[in-house]
Amino acid sequence: MKKIGFIGIGIMGRGMAANLVKAGFELTVYTRRKEKIEDFLRQTGVQWAESPAKCAMGQEAVITMVGYPKDVEDVYFGENGILSGAEQGAFLIDMTTTDPRLSLRIAEAGREKNLHVLDAPVSGGDTGAREGTLSIMVGGNETDFAASLPLFRAMGKTIVYEGGHGAGQHTKMANQIAIAGALAGVCEAVAYGERVGLDTAKMLESIENGAAGSFQMRANGPKMINGDDAPGFFLKHFVKDMRIALEQSADPLPILEQVLKMNEALEKEGFGDCGTQAMIHSYRKS
Amino acid sequence: MKKIGFIGIGIMGRGMAANLVKAGFELTVYTRRKEKIEDFLRQTGVQWAESPAKCAMGQEAVITMVGYPKDVEDVYFGENGILSGAEQGAFLIDMTTTDPRLSLRIAEAGREKNLHVLDAPVSGGDTGAREGTLSIMVGGNETDFAASLPLFRAMGKTIVYEGGHGAGQHTKMANQIAIAGALAGVCEAVAYGERVGLDTAKMLESIENGAAGSFQMRANGPKMINGDDAPGFFLKHFVKDMRIALEQSADPLPILEQVLKMNEALEKEGFGDCGTQAMIHSYRKS
Repeated sequence: MKKIGFIGIGIMGRGMAANLVKAGFELTVYTRRKEKIEDFLRQTGVQWAESPAKCAMGQEAVITMVGYPKDVEDVYFGENGILSGAEQGAFLIDMTTTDPRLSLRIAEAGREKNLHVLDAPVSGGDTGAREGTLSIMVGGNETDFAASLPLFRAMGKTIVYEGGHGAGQHTKMANQIAIAGALAGVCEAVAYGERVGLDTAKMLESIENGAAGSFQMRANGPKMINGDDAPGFFLKHFVKDMRIALEQSADPLPILEQVLKMNEALEKEGFGDCGTQAMIHSYRKS
Repeated sequence: MKKIGFIGIGIMGRGMAANLVKAGFELTVYTRRKEKIEDFLRQTGVQWAESPAKCAMGQEAVITMVGYPKDVEDVYFGENGILSGAEQGAFLIDMTTTDPRLSLRIAEAGREKNLHVLDAPVSGGDTGAREGTLSIMVGGNETDFAASLPLFRAMGKTIVYEGGHGAGQHTKMANQIAIAGALAGVCEAVAYGERVGLDTAKMLESIENGAAGSFQMRANGPKMINGDDAPGFFLKHFVKDMRIALEQSADPLPILEQVLKMNEALEKEGFGDCGTQAMIHSYRKS
């Protein structure tokens, strides 16, 4: 594989696409607004296509990294979508965190054209995207997974085949569910510490390497204490993911439900473009 | 300081007391039932006292590591309690995880006798107790803290002065609150994975080193998957801690409330003597 179409040059896609270029792949990219990526096009010298269909034409693989399930639907199934442009036998790899049911639909639609469809959401944030150290969770046929490894290796470090179509998305959902609990635990520990008058920085320092420790505590705890709401991962995207996970779970997930409820309220109040650590504001208003 | 009274030779206390003996301190111990620690007395050669008061007499410091706030109350304020036996100027160090208000009461009661009272709960579990690697969170006067460091160093590794009386307990409460969230997140991620048919062991492996990673995931996730309910930390003790934290928090902590509710139900169903990973059973019954 050498010729790749890449759709979605946002915070994550930009780093991932740049790493593919660096690894020697020939990229053609599509974004909704070309003007937003003029600098990227200049720096990398990659081609820009006028539609998802045109971005898919003549490519051996097409990678998508867009925002919401609705965007995934548009770029694949829309009038000038990938499925109308993709070559026979091409690889279609959706790396957006999206609805596992959508992964199944794309796989189904691709079958007629003998397309190799994979769902391959990532974790690791913009830093991981930039540094090529993402975790990539892949669902689909195992032979398609094996054939796509050179692509994944250019973008990520921990690359795991999780099972059939949708299993990548389901693994990512499990990831987000675990984050929801851990993040909420950090918020409540910090809120408690503030309420009872502890030195919260000292408190975090003394508990973060023990049984209470987590990535969320180390990454977001200090931001909560310092009032830094800058986004690493957007609160509004976290809300999207939690909604999908809840829809997919046959039985209740009460903690996730509560965390979603609180973050939906925050999004309505204008915190959607903050980082997920802004969840602490739920506890400071009362 | 050399002569130490130690009250409470349970899962935790046994390792802590053994480490004090190893460090050269002269111990006298008290437990409610002597027969349960005959082997410990034989192995270490330490004295046994017939009451908390007698265990405190003639000692430079008395350490308590019992189960519930009620037990702390009994051993300090009871008829043959520590406060009736302690020498003028002795150090009283409660290392039980207990109610911060109780720490204040002991400090208050100790003032008349010029006793140096510290609250110093720990985290790190039975392994940390055995290996002398506990985290110790200390509240009280800073000079008393400094004077007690040789004792703490024999039992722990991360030893932090958190502030005035009760600040050690409050820090431990924050620790338990963060654990509640992280643990619940792991339960829900595993439950979700099981419901959607993922290979949950593979799933955990691919997410545990990323943003979803936590001590709880690494320690308890595999136990949940393997059906291992053996106690590292008792579910019933976790319930106790969460109750105290909720009582202490002026405003709601909705995630903690939910986790407590689920674990109270499990305790009623007979899971109290299991480890906290048994919380996963809340998700498997429905």
